[in-house]
Amino acid sequence: MNARIRLLAAALVCLLPWPLLAQIGVPPRPLPDGPFVIDTAEQGPVRVTVVKGLDRPWDLKFLPSGDILVTERPGRRLRIVRDGVLDPRPIAGLPDIDDGSGGGLMSVAIHPRFAENGWVYLTYTKAAESGHRAVGLARGRLEGAALTDVRELFAAEEPGGGPAPGLPLIFGPDGYLYMGVGGANDEIAQRGDSYYGKVLRFNDDGTVPENPFAGRQGFKPEIYTLGHRNMVGMTVHPSTGAVWQNENGPLGGDEVNILKPGANYGWPLVSYGRDYSGAPVSKMRTMVGVEDPVLFWNPSIAISGMTFYTGEVFPEWQDNLFVGGLQFGRIARTGQMHRIVFNEDWQEIRREALFVELRQRIRDVEQGPDGLLYVLTDEQDGALLKLEPAE
Amino acid sequence: MNARIRLLAAALVCLLPWPLLAQIGVPPRPLPDGPFVIDTAEQGPVRVTVVKGLDRPWDLKFLPSGDILVTERPGRRLRIVRDGVLDPRPIAGLPDIDDGSGGGLMSVAIHPRFAENGWVYLTYTKAAESGHRAVGLARGRLEGAALTDVRELFAAEEPGGGPAPGLPLIFGPDGYLYMGVGGANDEIAQRGDSYYGKVLRFNDDGTVPENPFAGRQGFKPEIYTLGHRNMVGMTVHPSTGAVWQNENGPLGGDEVNILKPGANYGWPLVSYGRDYSGAPVSKMRTMVGVEDPVLFWNPSIAISGMTFYTGEVFPEWQDNLFVGGLQFGRIARTGQMHRIVFNEDWQEIRREALFVELRQRIRDVEQGPDGLLYVLTDEQDGALLKLEPAE
Repeated sequence: MNARIRLLAAALVCLLPWPLLAQIGVPPRPLPDGPFVIDTAEQGPVRVTVVKGLDRPWDLKFLPSGDILVTERPGRRLRIVRDGVLDPRPIAGLPDIDDGSGGGLMSVAIHPRFAENGWVYLTYTKAAESGHRAVGLARGRLEGAALTDVRELFAAEEPGGGPAPGLPLIFGPDGYLYMGVGGANDEIAQRGDSYYGKVLRFNDDGTVPENPFAGRQGFKPEIYTLGHRNMVGMTVHPSTGAVWQNENGPLGGDEVNILKPGANYGWPLVSYGRDYSGAPVSKMRTMVGVEDPVLFWNPSIAISGMTFYTGEVFPEWQDNLFVGGLQFGRIARTGQMHRIVFNEDWQEIRREALFVELRQRIRDVEQGPDGLLYVLTDEQDGALLKLEPAE
Repeated sequence: MNARIRLLAAALVCLLPWPLLAQIGVPPRPLPDGPFVIDTAEQGPVRVTVVKGLDRPWDLKFLPSGDILVTERPGRRLRIVRDGVLDPRPIAGLPDIDDGSGGGLMSVAIHPRFAENGWVYLTYTKAAESGHRAVGLARGRLEGAALTDVRELFAAEEPGGGPAPGLPLIFGPDGYLYMGVGGANDEIAQRGDSYYGKVLRFNDDGTVPENPFAGRQGFKPEIYTLGHRNMVGMTVHPSTGAVWQNENGPLGGDEVNILKPGANYGWPLVSYGRDYSGAPVSKMRTMVGVEDPVLFWNPSIAISGMTFYTGEVFPEWQDNLFVGGLQFGRIARTGQMHRIVFNEDWQEIRREALFVELRQRIRDVEQGPDGLLYVLTDEQDGALLKLEPAE
């Protein structure tokens, strides 16, 4: 290729939408409809039951009744699964959501006193001025198959295009609502006057508690931590009560962090990853004043939802961290779920890859009140998988 | 568990041989006898032919004729495969080799002018004083099914037990012989008066050329580079001619390095890995005066042999690096081979995991003179796999 043709080819590649660039992959493999069994290293054979019919599901959370709420990102729909059956009617009454540029309805959180007050919280992307990006947080009361009293608690719109942010959302054991705002591929993650690349903290009514940067000049008062890239998973540690959060690196550099008030997680000043071009993000992996990740991946698994397992049904998995992944090493259709085993000081000692042979994007994992594990696949024909010990 | 029982349990675990500790794994899956097809992301379906009957093969090298030499580590046997058929008789005339503690016959190298002189080089572990470890390098002429004129060119014996060292061996394009001596789980890798944790460089007759530390007080003259852990793979870069070398991290920290004369690769001062206990090896990932790896893995794949593909048969794989792995994340029977794709500056842009579904330990990969790829599985019923495009 001569230089002019190569330049033209490079320009054309840059114009391609990002998902097309990521489509180098192995052939698809259909997910079985019926129950199937997978091998695992320490828990023996595990039986997997499949609920199909979801459109790129993003997040799942359990209601105290055992019913499951599932968000569909591009469909802007909140779905409900009761006794293993997906209700064909989405829940009515959602706020205004825009699903352009890979956005849409993202996460759902359930109020710790849901049984009394029925509050359900949602994060989503919103329609925005040209060249801007906008996100929202709303709550509503779940009554039957509808949300009522819906109110937007927080919204942000800032210049800067880029991919849609991950917007993880959970209640901490302290009763505060933690919301990650990703979409920060640049140094905006370090700036206190932007919401992007930050974890925000709210009271359950959307007001702002005494956060670490309260009253600091040039800092948004909602900011709890900074220096994050695209965030996806958030969960609460079963014994310390700390919020564990994860975020995608580019090529390498997926990481799990433990949130500490006011801490800086370093993006993009330090990273274990490389840019998609192959160039290192930074010469430095760590620096003074920056929190190191507690776990990291190289190559990336396109890290997604995560949870600690604390149930009795899988005794060999107790206190293990389960982490979803959409693809391995930037090869499409190589999604997997990793199980991380810790020593008594919560330092990693083993990491098992599960679901490698399914060739599905693993999007989220949660523990049900029945002590089983539930997994979402991020596919156009997406599914909810239920894991239980095989007889 | 009370403290005394826990202490006793810990002591018993420490007394277990290392391979037993590593046996948490998924169930075995027999390797098919006949040809089978695997999916790949960029080269489409690939047909795999199987030659069985090898006992934990360690290294394979091609003779100019296309015949293949294969070492068997615990069997202390050098085997030959002609036209896809394993000769049942091992090659006669090998030097004295001891296969205790996971050692045995390790690597084989072929003289660049083998057609003229018939020289074949071997590395191996040797019987040693109690509590010592010993390694050797020998050469002999391959004549028919025997080595003749066998002579030990180099031997080292030092106090310090530990697992058997990897002993990779290749000729550089400069005509020198490069030999890695691993087995350095401690700071001995930094000491100039020890051969362990070093790459050594020899002339083809075993004499010592003008090496980087020549004449330096307290330094063995054979040392070419230092600060290595357990080394396994070595290969020559197809365009730069540099020697690329790899070594196992403990839990995380497998790495590929580019050898530079006199350079320090940092073990155990810096590492991307954790100790098997879960504790970090070092708080630092990198430091001034230490060469960073060009590639690293977290979690570890128990990295093994590697080669660049330069043939015409797999056009989509040209200039890709293929790297074997014995297991993923310290879970047994999760071996795989990784294919690394680079940009024009030889920076990584993608990493594909191959052979994940086989559940075999992938021990080595080499390109044949026919432009095909050949792979060894490190199993008791080990095999040589031949890869070619499926019709």
